[in-house]
Amino acid sequence: MSRADTYIDENMSRFREELFDFLRIPSVSANSENRPDMQRAAEWLVQRMREAGLQAAIHPTAGHPIVLGEWRGAGAGAPTVLIYGHYDVQPAEPLELWSSPPYEPEIRDGRIYARGSVDDKGQLYLHVKALESLLKAEGRLPVNVVLVAEGEEEIGSDNLVPFLEKMRDQLACDYVIVSDTTMVAPGVPTIGASLRGLAYFQIDVQGPAKDLHSGSYGGAVLNPATVLCRIVASFHDLDWHATIPGFYDKVRPATEVRDQIAQVPFEDETLREETGSPTLGGEAGYSTLERLWVRPTVEVNGLLSGFTGEGSKTVLPAHAMAKVSCRLVPDQDPVLVAKLFMEHIHRVAPKEGVTVTITPMHTGQAWRARLGGKLYEAAARSLEAAFGRKVVYAGEGGSIPIVSDFERVLGAPVLLMGFGLPGENAHAPDEWLDVDTFERGMHAAANLLAQLSA
Amino acid sequence: MSRADTYIDENMSRFREELFDFLRIPSVSANSENRPDMQRAAEWLVQRMREAGLQAAIHPTAGHPIVLGEWRGAGAGAPTVLIYGHYDVQPAEPLELWSSPPYEPEIRDGRIYARGSVDDKGQLYLHVKALESLLKAEGRLPVNVVLVAEGEEEIGSDNLVPFLEKMRDQLACDYVIVSDTTMVAPGVPTIGASLRGLAYFQIDVQGPAKDLHSGSYGGAVLNPATVLCRIVASFHDLDWHATIPGFYDKVRPATEVRDQIAQVPFEDETLREETGSPTLGGEAGYSTLERLWVRPTVEVNGLLSGFTGEGSKTVLPAHAMAKVSCRLVPDQDPVLVAKLFMEHIHRVAPKEGVTVTITPMHTGQAWRARLGGKLYEAAARSLEAAFGRKVVYAGEGGSIPIVSDFERVLGAPVLLMGFGLPGENAHAPDEWLDVDTFERGMHAAANLLAQLSA
Repeated sequence: MSRADTYIDENMSRFREELFDFLRIPSVSANSENRPDMQRAAEWLVQRMREAGLQAAIHPTAGHPIVLGEWRGAGAGAPTVLIYGHYDVQPAEPLELWSSPPYEPEIRDGRIYARGSVDDKGQLYLHVKALESLLKAEGRLPVNVVLVAEGEEEIGSDNLVPFLEKMRDQLACDYVIVSDTTMVAPGVPTIGASLRGLAYFQIDVQGPAKDLHSGSYGGAVLNPATVLCRIVASFHDLDWHATIPGFYDKVRPATEVRDQIAQVPFEDETLREETGSPTLGGEAGYSTLERLWVRPTVEVNGLLSGFTGEGSKTVLPAHAMAKVSCRLVPDQDPVLVAKLFMEHIHRVAPKEGVTVTITPMHTGQAWRARLGGKLYEAAARSLEAAFGRKVVYAGEGGSIPIVSDFERVLGAPVLLMGFGLPGENAHAPDEWLDVDTFERGMHAAANLLAQLSA
Repeated sequence: MSRADTYIDENMSRFREELFDFLRIPSVSANSENRPDMQRAAEWLVQRMREAGLQAAIHPTAGHPIVLGEWRGAGAGAPTVLIYGHYDVQPAEPLELWSSPPYEPEIRDGRIYARGSVDDKGQLYLHVKALESLLKAEGRLPVNVVLVAEGEEEIGSDNLVPFLEKMRDQLACDYVIVSDTTMVAPGVPTIGASLRGLAYFQIDVQGPAKDLHSGSYGGAVLNPATVLCRIVASFHDLDWHATIPGFYDKVRPATEVRDQIAQVPFEDETLREETGSPTLGGEAGYSTLERLWVRPTVEVNGLLSGFTGEGSKTVLPAHAMAKVSCRLVPDQDPVLVAKLFMEHIHRVAPKEGVTVTITPMHTGQAWRARLGGKLYEAAARSLEAAFGRKVVYAGEGGSIPIVSDFERVLGAPVLLMGFGLPGENAHAPDEWLDVDTFERGMHAAANLLAQLSA
């Protein structure tokens, strides 16, 4: 047990209290009324980084600021490690579904419940505290460190890539570490093998100029809600394969990940319970983990049209809207998929009677880890030491578009070392972070830097 | 010109002012917060009926009260005419789309703009004023009259049939007159030849227990919004024929109404402009008036699922909802259609992964006029006198379920003599009633009673 490990254990209750302070700031990047909270969260973080022993500063962007921390004391001969996290959170709505208020963190059954606990404030903060522990216990870090905390991950990271490009020299590094993913099961240390990408659209169907009486006009004008449903229904066949021509062209066979999947302790029933679905279900011919890791999807994220209140109103809606997003897998080009998707919609939509508008909202490249090499070997050793169990390599269903951007702009390999757990409710009410995993993650983070210096 | 006609013309500005008072009462039957306004509207109406010379009283029901007015002075040998209308109105939302406030009536370009102006307060009130004019100018009515004004037409008339049944003896009559429909064009007096019926449902698709992250779970659980769209898309084929097995079994050929349609001055372009649709559209093989008069429809009235705000949120919704209604034509049995509809949905819905619930909301029988006989001949004469033009017989796309109920319970033929106009915005923002038509309608209503006494 290193001196840093001892320091971590001795200071853990303070670290938790500090994390609670961080979680109390409603840093919702999507809401303009939370802009002052975003600034407050950034300032709070800078202060904690300085106390930890880093040089830290706020970098304004066109959107929310980026917080940059640095420690260069290991010298030019030592490797430089860039650690990335984000201090913004998803909106907490619907508030009535939270068991405790989203910005009043509370520990129940060994879990910290709060918006942002696992996504991503807790995972970001364990790195800050790992660095503090190394610096206070050893007087130095084993490597040079750059810590980048952005405030726009939940709204598309629009200003991060320009920042990386502008600061390319200052951010030059050998390795990138990202802790914003989940482990496959409690106690099973997990390294991310892939991420899905994203192409998000809004579809608007405009029919009559205003809502009409469905009796007086029904049958004589196209109903935009019916048309919208027809468009959405055209995205899949009866086996839930996507029907957009060309959609699967670049998708590699799922058999490639069957060995990795075999190592993962996973049962469908656990996931089913976690989701509360009557049964799991999805694309025919694939297992659940294949569906999540290496199969692209087309999902409806939202629908709105006409009368949605209680009771009945016989309205023929003027307008219908769907939010739709594709989760993409490595080798699919989001821009090409967006093009195929829009072509498909225009092909199936009625040629007259309604106006169909497709608004691309954002895209993100999927990513596949190049497993092996010093970064991955060091990560496996430090995770195995912290968790006392062999690591597994797991695909991640979600998207972190900036992972590809880090590799592209900085030319360094990225490691996904996440400390979330299944059922953590990221992006949903009752988000939580497991306390034990938070602590082990901190030990792993500290140890990884030592491993990378060797 | 009769003395009643002169009285009408001399008192018209007062009649309009009174109607404005009536329109200022937001008697929205669907909203529980408007319950006091419903009572106020009923009391206001009783007072005006008494001033007109009728005996009038409020009859409480399990829902909103029914106002009953009577004049029996014509004696047992004279026919009795029952006039029906409703004093409740549709909700005015969305308020921001009104050019003037919905409960502050305003005349612009010869039209009275207000919620309820045409549907149905104006049409109801012109009968009250026709009766007043006859009574004040002649000292008596040519026939016995019963006036029934209900307060639940916009929410399904649940308490009207029990009232008719309970009061069957007191309401016994030879003819029933309903003014709650539209004329085919300005200045063209119109007698209703048919009404469509209704079967209204809510469809709820429940997937996971709560909204999920569409990345972490997308592909492994069925998306209830996608499932809902698939269900809705299954209601029609590419030609917009309904695909529900048995749906058209009792529907008579549209050729039966082609002679009536030939008499009607109608152009597609007028209707297209009125609706603001890019083009008209609907079931292949039928003209616009056939689609509206004698073809049943399946319409989506509302859709709601997941994230519907500005921007993007990568949520896999727990739940999706559609409001759907069928407009039915004469000879279709709404209860049978509801059964076919529910069977169809259960057949096309996935057998597992989601729970699909169908809630029947209300049904109404379609109706076909038995044209001819004293009622229809008298109506044609009085309308032709008031408007100076031959009447046409037109189907109506909307539903007035109680028309069939009147015929069934009271055993008297019903006449639809409506004074709305195309584009009147019933059930929509900027509802209006044409002032000239209101006045001519009042003359026709007074004259019709004289014609029926002959």
